[in-house]
Amino acid sequence: MARNKGEESKKKIFQAAAELFAHKGFHATKISDIVAKAGLTQAAFYLYFNSKEEIFEQMLEDFEKQLIHFSDAGKKVADIQPEHVKDHVRETIADILKFLGKNPHLTKVALRENKDDRLRSIIVEKIAANMSNNQRLGIVKTEIDTQFAGEAFLSVIEHIIERYVMTGEKTENELADQVSLLFLEGILNKN
Amino acid sequence: MARNKGEESKKKIFQAAAELFAHKGFHATKISDIVAKAGLTQAAFYLYFNSKEEIFEQMLEDFEKQLIHFSDAGKKVADIQPEHVKDHVRETIADILKFLGKNPHLTKVALRENKDDRLRSIIVEKIAANMSNNQRLGIVKTEIDTQFAGEAFLSVIEHIIERYVMTGEKTENELADQVSLLFLEGILNKN
Repeated sequence: MARNKGEESKKKIFQAAAELFAHKGFHATKISDIVAKAGLTQAAFYLYFNSKEEIFEQMLEDFEKQLIHFSDAGKKVADIQPEHVKDHVRETIADILKFLGKNPHLTKVALRENKDDRLRSIIVEKIAANMSNNQRLGIVKTEIDTQFAGEAFLSVIEHIIERYVMTGEKTENELADQVSLLFLEGILNKN
Repeated sequence: MARNKGEESKKKIFQAAAELFAHKGFHATKISDIVAKAGLTQAAFYLYFNSKEEIFEQMLEDFEKQLIHFSDAGKKVADIQPEHVKDHVRETIADILKFLGKNPHLTKVALRENKDDRLRSIIVEKIAANMSNNQRLGIVKTEIDTQFAGEAFLSVIEHIIERYVMTGEKTENELADQVSLLFLEGILNKN
């Protein structure tokens, strides 16, 4: 019971920090802001974390772990019948949007606020590596600069999460359809 | 001669403001920062401007005027032989990137810092209106959500200016080739 209460407080602090980092930025957010938002004391904060940097690092780690799943989906393209590649990619895009849409604050913090762009680079490199592999397999067109395509894809994903998912204007499935329409003809070889 | 010197000081203030707005943000930039960067006095500032808001408004206006040119290029697609549409669009994309790349600070200020997103919305609506018109003419696929496509296109342009043009990693022509490869097959009907 005590442990559950502790876990709950920790989660509250984490959630409050994510929201504040997203709205005010990491640097402008003070520990006093975080505990006030979480409805806890400064002492409670230090029970679970040593610093706000520690929360930030943990956020990035969690985010990274969850994103590996989507990177694996990109690898699987090679095992799929050519006529189903588009549907598979479209499904993966919808899943990515759903994951990011469920974690809008984390998404903003991880992809925007993170000044050294470490996580952004990791994601771009993973997308690019998968695409380069699919290029060698004849699935992706050889003319495509896969790093560029990764950067372009990620900037679209980031923007539409903020513009359409967070405003509730479009669903993740509608967006996945449009992203697929825009990009897939350009990227994939005709089978 | 006196007038030329005045024009030069005004230009220096404008340029310094653009750089500071881009790096520190509009709100964090003080008039004292601007004149220090421009190598002028606070008194000189007030000879040419009433406030930093006035500079900001003027920046957006200049930017908007210059962007109309590209919007007109989008309209012209209808007058072009079907087999030349892709080349025309590719050229227009290269021109847009060259314009934005020559004005990186202004680009950042106008598209990012501008909190009410007025200019961004104007640009997206113009792209969407041109695309919808080209949809009626059978040039753009009917399945494309033109507002979405405008948002996606603009977020890619914004990002690649920062990522590749400002770092000197790729030329505007290389980028225009890649943007065209990624998007045009998805957007344009086959002729």
